[in-house]
Amino acid sequence: MLLHLSTWQEVEAFLQRSKTVIVPIGSNEQHGPTGLLGTDWLCPEIIAHEAQKSADILVAPTFNVGMAQHHLGFPGTISLRPSTFMAAIGDWCRSLAGHGFEKIYFLNGHGGNVATIEAAFSELYAEASFAGRERGFALKLKNWWDLRGVNALANRQFPTGHGSHATPSEIAVTQWAYPDAVKAANYAPQIAPTGPIREALDFRARYTDGRMGSDPAQATPEKGGELVKLAVEGLVADVTDFSAEVFPARG
Amino acid sequence: MLLHLSTWQEVEAFLQRSKTVIVPIGSNEQHGPTGLLGTDWLCPEIIAHEAQKSADILVAPTFNVGMAQHHLGFPGTISLRPSTFMAAIGDWCRSLAGHGFEKIYFLNGHGGNVATIEAAFSELYAEASFAGRERGFALKLKNWWDLRGVNALANRQFPTGHGSHATPSEIAVTQWAYPDAVKAANYAPQIAPTGPIREALDFRARYTDGRMGSDPAQATPEKGGELVKLAVEGLVADVTDFSAEVFPARG
Amino acid sequence: MLLHLSTWQEVEAFLQRSKTVIVPIGSNEQHGPTGLLGTDWLCPEIIAHEAQKSADILVAPTFNVGMAQHHLGFPGTISLRPSTFMAAIGDWCRSLAGHGFEKIYFLNGHGGNVATIEAAFSELYAEASFAGRERGFALKLKNWWDLRGVNALANRQFPTGHGSHATPSEIAVTQWAYPDAVKAANYAPQIAPTGPIREALDFRARYTDGRMGSDPAQATPEKGGELVKLAVEGLVADVTDFSAEVFPARG
Amino acid sequence: MLLHLSTWQEVEAFLQRSKTVIVPIGSNEQHGPTGLLGTDWLCPEIIAHEAQKSADILVAPTFNVGMAQHHLGFPGTISLRPSTFMAAIGDWCRSLAGHGFEKIYFLNGHGGNVATIEAAFSELYAEASFAGRERGFALKLKNWWDLRGVNALANRQFPTGHGSHATPSEIAVTQWAYPDAVKAANYAPQIAPTGPIREALDFRARYTDGRMGSDPAQATPEKGGELVKLAVEGLVADVTDFSAEVFPARG
Amino acid sequence: MLLHLSTWQEVEAFLQRSKTVIVPIGSNEQHGPTGLLGTDWLCPEIIAHEAQKSADILVAPTFNVGMAQHHLGFPGTISLRPSTFMAAIGDWCRSLAGHGFEKIYFLNGHGGNVATIEAAFSELYAEASFAGRERGFALKLKNWWDLRGVNALANRQFPTGHGSHATPSEIAVTQWAYPDAVKAANYAPQIAPTGPIREALDFRARYTDGRMGSDPAQATPEKGGELVKLAVEGLVADVTDFSAEVFPARG
Amino acid sequence: MLLHLSTWQEVEAFLQRSKTVIVPIGSNEQHGPTGLLGTDWLCPEIIAHEAQKSADILVAPTFNVGMAQHHLGFPGTISLRPSTFMAAIGDWCRSLAGHGFEKIYFLNGHGGNVATIEAAFSELYAEASFAGRERGFALKLKNWWDLRGVNALANRQFPTGHGSHATPSEIAVTQWAYPDAVKAANYAPQIAPTGPIREALDFRARYTDGRMGSDPAQATPEKGGELVKLAVEGLVADVTDFSAEVFPARG
Repeated sequence: MLLHLSTWQEVEAFLQRSKTVIVPIGSNEQHGPTGLLGTDWLCPEIIAHEAQKSADILVAPTFNVGMAQHHLGFPGTISLRPSTFMAAIGDWCRSLAGHGFEKIYFLNGHGGNVATIEAAFSELYAEASFAGRERGFALKLKNWWDLRGVNALANRQFPTGHGSHATPSEIAVTQWAYPDAVKAANYAPQIAPTGPIREALDFRARYTDGRMGSDPAQATPEKGGELVKLAVEGLVADVTDFSAEVFPARG
Repeated sequence: MLLHLSTWQEVEAFLQRSKTVIVPIGSNEQHGPTGLLGTDWLCPEIIAHEAQKSADILVAPTFNVGMAQHHLGFPGTISLRPSTFMAAIGDWCRSLAGHGFEKIYFLNGHGGNVATIEAAFSELYAEASFAGRERGFALKLKNWWDLRGVNALANRQFPTGHGSHATPSEIAVTQWAYPDAVKAANYAPQIAPTGPIREALDFRARYTDGRMGSDPAQATPEKGGELVKLAVEGLVADVTDFSAEVFPARG
Repeated sequence: MLLHLSTWQEVEAFLQRSKTVIVPIGSNEQHGPTGLLGTDWLCPEIIAHEAQKSADILVAPTFNVGMAQHHLGFPGTISLRPSTFMAAIGDWCRSLAGHGFEKIYFLNGHGGNVATIEAAFSELYAEASFAGRERGFALKLKNWWDLRGVNALANRQFPTGHGSHATPSEIAVTQWAYPDAVKAANYAPQIAPTGPIREALDFRARYTDGRMGSDPAQATPEKGGELVKLAVEGLVADVTDFSAEVFPARG
Repeated sequence: MLLHLSTWQEVEAFLQRSKTVIVPIGSNEQHGPTGLLGTDWLCPEIIAHEAQKSADILVAPTFNVGMAQHHLGFPGTISLRPSTFMAAIGDWCRSLAGHGFEKIYFLNGHGGNVATIEAAFSELYAEASFAGRERGFALKLKNWWDLRGVNALANRQFPTGHGSHATPSEIAVTQWAYPDAVKAANYAPQIAPTGPIREALDFRARYTDGRMGSDPAQATPEKGGELVKLAVEGLVADVTDFSAEVFPARG
Repeated sequence: MLLHLSTWQEVEAFLQRSKTVIVPIGSNEQHGPTGLLGTDWLCPEIIAHEAQKSADILVAPTFNVGMAQHHLGFPGTISLRPSTFMAAIGDWCRSLAGHGFEKIYFLNGHGGNVATIEAAFSELYAEASFAGRERGFALKLKNWWDLRGVNALANRQFPTGHGSHATPSEIAVTQWAYPDAVKAANYAPQIAPTGPIREALDFRARYTDGRMGSDPAQATPEKGGELVKLAVEGLVADVTDFSAEVFPARG
Repeated sequence: MLLHLSTWQEVEAFLQRSKTVIVPIGSNEQHGPTGLLGTDWLCPEIIAHEAQKSADILVAPTFNVGMAQHHLGFPGTISLRPSTFMAAIGDWCRSLAGHGFEKIYFLNGHGGNVATIEAAFSELYAEASFAGRERGFALKLKNWWDLRGVNALANRQFPTGHGSHATPSEIAVTQWAYPDAVKAANYAPQIAPTGPIREALDFRARYTDGRMGSDPAQATPEKGGELVKLAVEGLVADVTDFSAEVFPARG
């Protein structure tokens, strides 16, 4: 069930069945010569939308701009500062919790988001902790590649040149979902360099075409389809577990 | 051209042709018994995506959660506080301007966003004004119903019961684009009441099913298609004018 | 009754009679070659102070610096950033509401304030909306020229060259109240140009003497007196209506 | 010269003669059974407005709401939080400095403002200090009772029962300026108690009628006039010294 | 009792005996050619740690970086902006108050901290004041040199050249506690100049070696020991008084 | 070299030899029945202070209060909200970078700090990225247990019951450094439970004595000494590598 294609009364009815909502979250940032700018928010959206076709889960709109300050040297990247990102995640969670959602599950598509999302969670929990009251909801962050079996499959599909940015696995997922938007390019070098991540100019100087450690030429729509299939299964299982979790009794 | 389905190099090439980018912006909020929660961000997205099929314009990802605090009494609504919304708009604009975009055009789908978006623009301009420097970019906000001819058409289509929230025109647009998500309900009263907008509990007490002044039963996919067609023409014309605008010479 | 010339016990007594307070709000900004820098806060102050001579209404101190970032290119302008302005309006409202005022009425003298004041209202309402509680007070913004009959009178007095900044009507009001501060100048052109509002340098390049669309030479103290008289009547009527408004019963 | 009754061109001309501007700053807060709520912003305004009649100094609009959180238990008090107050002072100073004012002199009427104003100054200076650049302007805070000779006179006028809040000296100043707003009451006890200042409820419990250590019954308009006369002389002298101060050469 | 060398259960037990906690607070900033960068946080730490050896008082970790923006022109200085400092003090106090501490006593070692700490206190109190509730805790700021008898002793020890920054008294205290870190230098001039404090570059231009009005050559470990001894007595007495203070009954 | 026991001139001289500074950073939070509240800031301080005895490295004051919101249910814990923590880290880094430090190395003692510190780094980098300029300094975060060989040693020392909070390894380090503050208790169960981390009340309900997965009874001062020795070697090596790193040439 897609929240944005539902009415408020349909959401009210869903809350009778479940207190869990899934938020696809990613980033809009450069992904090398052939990766789509939307890759990191499209991947979790693709997986979550696919998952809700066969499972009774609720998928919120996609949080499509995240923390990508290091990619701002490449046209098309849109980033929030961490402080802005935290404020926005906070307002999303407060909105959803206000309706009675007790489990808010972020399916993430961007490694660079992780620290800030976790900090945002702590900021939200801290409100309750400073006030000496229970929060009333639990937050969970899961990268789609960490869903059961997904990383292992990607490693089998791409034993070399997977890398950490503009990876063949994420590009394959978007190729499967957007076959009309498959791009091609020559890569030089075939496998991109690796190193630290700092500000945007430093990033662009180190990673001249935007990739980190990856050889995206290996991506195919078929491999993307395999990844999506496995991720969908993993997502449904993980959300089921999260929904089943019971809050501890206060001593 | 959809930014999120493009590579950074394609955006770099676009910047050689144009310095203008369009951001569909809306809100994810209740729209009465039959309106989709996504209505206010779907409408500008539908129109902008349709427009880019025939015109060489660049459409950014949709800013899908805006200022809807008054709708938080209805499940499914997600809102940013105005201060958060302003910070996020600021970071989007700074990101885009950093790439060389000089005209950032927000196509808006939610009346409740207008004041905050305008305040966000002033906050951005103020940075330059306090520093005594030129901003380097211009911002424009346009509601899709204010595009040339659109309001007039809606008035002809819905001479009574158009109202101001969960209107038949916006619902018609989503019906045209998402025919599988058309909903039905009985309305009581047929035309909803009107009045002031304050906090969420006050809103829910006044507008018990979420509508304001509207009779959404009049919406049809066909009427939605007519509105989209006119809005697309208006958008392309308006963006063309905005792109052509020249900054004044500094005295 | 002027709050600043009253004691706390007199305000306490007033609260037995009424829960409404009026806040004149404006801006301290350039108003062309002959308009006073204080014009936009003087006008609502003049009208509100005049009104309280004959009606039992309470007028708070004047909020005299608002959002005028676009005028910062002209000496004497003092502006708050929108975010500062919102924080300050919030604290004023929280202070007044804490004393039991349930209706806070802002009589505004600056068009450029409107978006930010509305955003500030939403920020205040949002606190309650996110917390799922009633706000306990209602906020209203009214531009003095939108009081009953005032715009119509100004249009009759100044059928051409009224414009939107440094208008003959607002200058006339200050001439009536401060006859010793009437200024004169030659205007070139007689009617100033119009156009968009952006950052301060852009504004100064477009509107070289500070006016927008106006011919202030038409202002006279007499016309100002007529405007004040009508505005006073409109204010008392509008405040009476606002005071009489009843909050809806929570369902 | 009153800035708000001047045009921008008159301020531009003044800047040729002087780079100094005076900002009367105070608080709108309860002042016991007979003190006006505006006392703390009226006093510096009265003195500064009187001073500019005979000296070529420029007086900005009055900053009339300051930091009075401890008085919020008494109706009519309006307070900014310290963080809001600092933001607003910052924007005032940035606005004025942007026009070329190099000396910004705050004439203060509220002891409770002092710490926050000083913190605001440091916040402004810190911007430059972190950036390793010169600030370009100097800020000065002076309480009107600390102007040359004023405290000594007040001590002679009110050898007992001067106290620290709702003092006979400040009330006398407002009586001199607003003879129609002189109030009377019986005080019990005649001299109010003293003690610490904390939150508003604590304050109201300690100081039941709002006074701290004072016997305001001793105030007369005549004494107020004497105080104003001396303060005017002190202000002009102090501003002259401040204006004459030269910035050190950077080593 | 040192909080950081205790377990939570030991603190829990302490709270049965006392609701007071002492926070040494200072600054890490240049102190002239011979003063340690840590002087301003070491002094209150030295005194408080010494005091808890003989009295049943609880000393929190030292808040070692404060508001020293004016010293940023000298290597080794670390400063918070006032706004950051206030936020951090707020979180410390909220944390401690959440455990049941009702009296939080800041023993301060840096004059430049005073205004911001007081503003931070007001910010904390204001939360309660705006909400119309009691704060539940009291805050006190005391400079170590203002403890009973300490200033008088310093004046006897250093009748000339005490000054206000890099003073012989504070340097003597650190010499007593850190005899291995005693430094020597020639001073030119022997007694440093005095003047105003503004941004860092201005400060460095005025006070070329960092001192203000002081001749630190007079410091000796013995004098430091005398100061510490007196300060310890004063601290225990002052904390005892503060602990004994009873909140007023709410009327 | 300890920065706080140095003069500004000694730091200035150090900057001729190295542009790297080490900041021990941790948290002041409960560590179970026998762990010190200061454990997480004492451990990196102990290691860094030990390391500077034999290597020419500069150690800043310890950042002793971090992000420990989940421990606020236990007396003695002091926490910053993530947003406050980020602001403070930012000001420390800006201060140090302003003096010419190009490599700022945070030696961390608290796992719960990691996300927020990384977010703080991104916030700092983002300032440069949005402005299109180079940052000029690089930031590095290293947990002391991730220094070369340290985790492996801890695993050998404590093959079972190491856990993740109030671990025997961190307690051993403090026992080695503070032998007078070694505590004892009976643990029930001997090895504490594990699970998720959310708000403080949830944490206290799950982990009743504060430990997570650990059996601290295994800690001894001797094991602590072994850990410190290895960590010191690892720290010097890691800092040497970081110092040697060259920024990439801008393309």
